Amino acid sequence: MTDALDDFYAIIPAGGIGSRLWPLSRADAPKFLHDLTGSGSSLLRQTWDRLEPLAGPERIMVVTGRAHRVAVESQLPGVDDHNIVLESEPKDSTAAIGLAAAILHRREPDVVIGSFAADHVIGDARGFRRSVREAVAAARAGYITTIGITPSEPAIGFGYIHAADESLDVAGASTAHAVRSFVEKPDLKTAKKYVANGSYLWNAGMFISRADVLLAEIGRTEPELLAGIEELAAAWDTSARGIVVDRIWPSLKKIAIDYTVAEPAAAAGRMAVVPGDFDWDDVGDFASLAKLQSGGRKNNLAVLGDNARILADSASGIVVSQSNRLISLIGVEDIVVVDTPDALLVTTSANAQRVKGVVDALKISGRDDVL
Amino acid sequence: MTDALDDFYAIIPAGGIGSRLWPLSRADAPKFLHDLTGSGSSLLRQTWDRLEPLAGPERIMVVTGRAHRVAVESQLPGVDDHNIVLESEPKDSTAAIGLAAAILHRREPDVVIGSFAADHVIGDARGFRRSVREAVAAARAGYITTIGITPSEPAIGFGYIHAADESLDVAGASTAHAVRSFVEKPDLKTAKKYVANGSYLWNAGMFISRADVLLAEIGRTEPELLAGIEELAAAWDTSARGIVVDRIWPSLKKIAIDYTVAEPAAAAGRMAVVPGDFDWDDVGDFASLAKLQSGGRKNNLAVLGDNARILADSASGIVVSQSNRLISLIGVEDIVVVDTPDALLVTTSANAQRVKGVVDALKISGRDDVL
Repeated sequence: MTDALDDFYAIIPAGGIGSRLWPLSRADAPKFLHDLTGSGSSLLRQTWDRLEPLAGPERIMVVTGRAHRVAVESQLPGVDDHNIVLESEPKDSTAAIGLAAAILHRREPDVVIGSFAADHVIGDARGFRRSVREAVAAARAGYITTIGITPSEPAIGFGYIHAADESLDVAGASTAHAVRSFVEKPDLKTAKKYVANGSYLWNAGMFISRADVLLAEIGRTEPELLAGIEELAAAWDTSARGIVVDRIWPSLKKIAIDYTVAEPAAAAGRMAVVPGDFDWDDVGDFASLAKLQSGGRKNNLAVLGDNARILADSASGIVVSQSNRLISLIGVEDIVVVDTPDALLVTTSANAQRVKGVVDALKISGRDDVL
Repeated sequence: MTDALDDFYAIIPAGGIGSRLWPLSRADAPKFLHDLTGSGSSLLRQTWDRLEPLAGPERIMVVTGRAHRVAVESQLPGVDDHNIVLESEPKDSTAAIGLAAAILHRREPDVVIGSFAADHVIGDARGFRRSVREAVAAARAGYITTIGITPSEPAIGFGYIHAADESLDVAGASTAHAVRSFVEKPDLKTAKKYVANGSYLWNAGMFISRADVLLAEIGRTEPELLAGIEELAAAWDTSARGIVVDRIWPSLKKIAIDYTVAEPAAAAGRMAVVPGDFDWDDVGDFASLAKLQSGGRKNNLAVLGDNARILADSASGIVVSQSNRLISLIGVEDIVVVDTPDALLVTTSANAQRVKGVVDALKISGRDDVL
């Protein structure tokens, strides 16, 4: 169980900025480039390190924006040049994962790909890899497979996967079940029902599938998009890549893989889920970052930042310090303070979701200098 | 009533840092050098401008620390060189005001001095000057006179002056009453009783007196301190000043004028009070600054700082911006955010008094760089 999987290729789409973590996350310093766990490694690097024992360093492909090429290469010195796919502009997850799958399928027709976000946190890498191995087995059997996280609480910040009761009985994937449906982020009452029910899992956005099966699924819902992806893939490992990218990429439809692959495949009975019994978080906002950092302790003040100088008197929440300034907090509970050289955010955990609204307001008012 | 008073000299002790306004107020940028009202003028300059029509520009003396000489001169281009008294180290208000009084008394034996803090805010300069004129009249009659502010609310942040019922019947000072006693900052219940009673006024730390009367009062309680002050004053306008200052000043007792003059004079029936019916505030902390800035409106976000760039979504309280950073506030009520290039404070109005504790902690831990 410790060997790399021969037919497996990992894909890391490293695209999202992480707007709800502004002003820590920026266009030029997106969430995946940050060390949000205090481990000394960026989330991207941690994702790589988690996948490397499964795929081997030559079999991890990263899809990212042109602007992040240098940063990604410096985070991942082991990445092969021909395994970096650069987007000239963001086109959402179907194009990003689909293109990677199409390129890999041309290089290796029977390849099983697994796509894992660059900016999630996973506590137990071994448990993660156990689940991926099962998911790969289910994928080999023809299923588009996801790993659903066993809920530790009735979270309302994640979508859920409703698994069928009967297991699929796939060799090497004893815990794989068919997916009945994907359901949107619930309200608390519904979330509690889901957790009590036991057949609902958190959707962590992981997709493991034969490349040909994934591409066929995209072709069913978005044939034009698939045609564009295939044309790009055909040119990718040739001298025509640049010309074809310039012509095709801008015209690709922006659509999340949830709508092109996950939901239709689930509805058609082609989707499997392997329960993942490991700690996982998408660290979507500062409330979740505070929780992660404080390990669930109440009245704790989490501090992120190597050179943080904090003086706190009755303060709880989280401080992110990216300047060398002394930060003094007095009598503030569940506070969120993010101190960067050109922008300061002060809010509370309860308002963490509203940070995206500020980013939107900044966009509208043209203050791109701080985005 | 608009002419300058011939025998009057104003003294502005400009000494206190204003620790509860840290990190806005600093050792090298004390409260009196800040424009806390958004008027475009520092509190020191506003104090000068209030007094100038009464005393004339040649008859205002400023007592300040050596370190502030350049800043004071640049704020007050009209100040005469021989009217700047520089302290080599802070020795509290008896030494500061006493020395100024002693110097002026040597220059002009019958002078009436009035001492007014450099860092208070007064809404109605004409009303203030009317009260000073009355106080000068009472002072000429031999009283050490203060101006007590008619309370607009049962404030617990100020000391109170308990006035006698009968007026003193001094020509030109029809509203002057004897002071029964000075009382410490009360609790809310006591403050309400004071305000209901009608004979309690806020102690604004203003002292108007013949210089010789004031010095005699110091001599009664602190004869050694007076002797030191007199020795300094005798040398002041001579070439021996430097040597005598170096010898005497470090040995002077540090004691507030409240204990050497105000309280004993009141107890002995030598203290008068003129009620001041004008808006006054000592702007002692950020809660008081927020209140001042918002003009009493609830749910208002006051902003202080010429280049402030604020993006607020459901925020109230006060932001002081001394950097060029974008400050974003989301869902924080009665918040206090003070953003300076090397230190950031986040607290709430309710905790404003605790800021001094942070300053003390910084002192103890030797972080003088941000004090």
